[in-house]
Amino acid sequence: MSQIYDRVALIGLGLIASSMFWAMKRGGLAGEVTGYARSEETRATAREIGLCDRVCESAAEAVEGADLVVLCVPIGAMEAVTVEIAPHLAKGATVSDVGSVKRAVIEAVKPHLPKDVHFVPAHPLAGTEHSGPKSGFAELFENRWCLLVPEGADTKAVARLRKLWEAMGANVDEMEADHHDLVLAVTSHAPHLIAYTMVGVADDLRRVTDSEIIKYSAAGFRDFTRIAASDPTMWRDVFLTNKDATLEILGRFTEELFALQRAIRTGDGDHLFDYFTHTRAIRRGIIEAGQDTDAPDFGRGAAKE
Amino acid sequence: MSQIYDRVALIGLGLIASSMFWAMKRGGLAGEVTGYARSEETRATAREIGLCDRVCESAAEAVEGADLVVLCVPIGAMEAVTVEIAPHLAKGATVSDVGSVKRAVIEAVKPHLPKDVHFVPAHPLAGTEHSGPKSGFAELFENRWCLLVPEGADTKAVARLRKLWEAMGANVDEMEADHHDLVLAVTSHAPHLIAYTMVGVADDLRRVTDSEIIKYSAAGFRDFTRIAASDPTMWRDVFLTNKDATLEILGRFTEELFALQRAIRTGDGDHLFDYFTHTRAIRRGIIEAGQDTDAPDFGRGAAKE
Repeated sequence: MSQIYDRVALIGLGLIASSMFWAMKRGGLAGEVTGYARSEETRATAREIGLCDRVCESAAEAVEGADLVVLCVPIGAMEAVTVEIAPHLAKGATVSDVGSVKRAVIEAVKPHLPKDVHFVPAHPLAGTEHSGPKSGFAELFENRWCLLVPEGADTKAVARLRKLWEAMGANVDEMEADHHDLVLAVTSHAPHLIAYTMVGVADDLRRVTDSEIIKYSAAGFRDFTRIAASDPTMWRDVFLTNKDATLEILGRFTEELFALQRAIRTGDGDHLFDYFTHTRAIRRGIIEAGQDTDAPDFGRGAAKE
Repeated sequence: MSQIYDRVALIGLGLIASSMFWAMKRGGLAGEVTGYARSEETRATAREIGLCDRVCESAAEAVEGADLVVLCVPIGAMEAVTVEIAPHLAKGATVSDVGSVKRAVIEAVKPHLPKDVHFVPAHPLAGTEHSGPKSGFAELFENRWCLLVPEGADTKAVARLRKLWEAMGANVDEMEADHHDLVLAVTSHAPHLIAYTMVGVADDLRRVTDSEIIKYSAAGFRDFTRIAASDPTMWRDVFLTNKDATLEILGRFTEELFALQRAIRTGDGDHLFDYFTHTRAIRRGIIEAGQDTDAPDFGRGAAKE
């Protein structure tokens, strides 16, 4: 594949940025990739493992001369970072991000950018429960979706960023910011909060020990613990910035949960059976769409001691 | 490994029974294994794939001369099956089951069994989202836990059944019936109901299409769809028969969820951050205990189209 950007700057060096770096290197998609992370320790790790062609000591230094700058920091840090880099951005550069909420990122970033810079918010729907500079890998985006939220940005800048994401293996769709935030509230934000809650409840019970929870977790519970092990800072910011959509979905969830609890209490087996039959269809759709494996138990097989 | 039972009868031929059959064959743990399933189609499939040494036309026929009978039917069918087989059980035989709820199974089965038969309820904490006679495999129980609930049964009979489960690869613990039902309400029953609910809510939204839910499911939602694709009959019976413990845990869950919703609404980031940090520890415990893989995303990698 051929080079799409001459110089890319990655601000924040966690799971997504490090995966982007390895994917860009694999495909020869960028001339030089610079990187910056706020923590000295992260920068040292990045240098040690060869993450980024050049690790800089400030965000301002990293973005100088870059034709693509990608903000890969938690949503709560986007505004401060933007204020810091704005005076150093090259004319005509594209600024993008990888945040899980789009309206809040647009509000935090857009007002601070110079007029001669293109802002194309993006959100790759990919990740694992691991975080930090060592957690990235080139294949993370393969066959995953990346949503662009161009909001009227220059069509050439949008097309170029799309080309980069496609070259990193992703499928690309465009979406309006508020609709993005609602879709993600359903497919990501509410499920994460629910998983965090269930794990917290289990941990907090007096009559069942943590050791019992852990030993017997293969009966279903362990599936929840994976997403409840995701990065706390990132997820705090997601919930604080996608408040309305998340609360709307959680409201619907609670309503439905109460209806099922009532069916259990009153012994309404038909209601339960119908509900459980219905939900199988979505799983089939996801497998047919290539978005999950049909191997039993995600193909993880027997975990060994 | 050496033979533990001369003749084993499997009543019901779904995921658990078929996995038991292949595990017993692999280890040479049983002389002859007979099987029975209510549906003609299932019996035909079993014969076709060589599931069981002999597939019988009635449960009564299957249990004749067996020194171990394992009830592998949904909990709601346990009582009727027991009434049917009781007069045909060999003196000194052991009757066991694999039901996910233990108090209800004991109440349904025990009163109908002859005095000269040993009843040792069991529950292997293993399964996948697939069901039916073709879904079983010999490795299903490896390094999983099987809980025995002997309730005063003959110690020799209990030790022999324990030996069988260990020879099929499982770790074995003994537990009291009500405590079992509470532990499973936390580690299995509540998580399943919550997953079913979340998938149902997603499917029912007007403003987000099913096709969007499916395409963008890798952001977290797809993890829920796996357990929400489990067998509807089995799960209806679980909730109807472990009503009190499940409702207790769901009550605690709702309380905690409301507290987190309030933290989101009021913008209490510290509360969210602390909660999300805490839940990471349980995941680590599960991985250290060998009950799940540490590979990112369960090691499922990129699902291909």
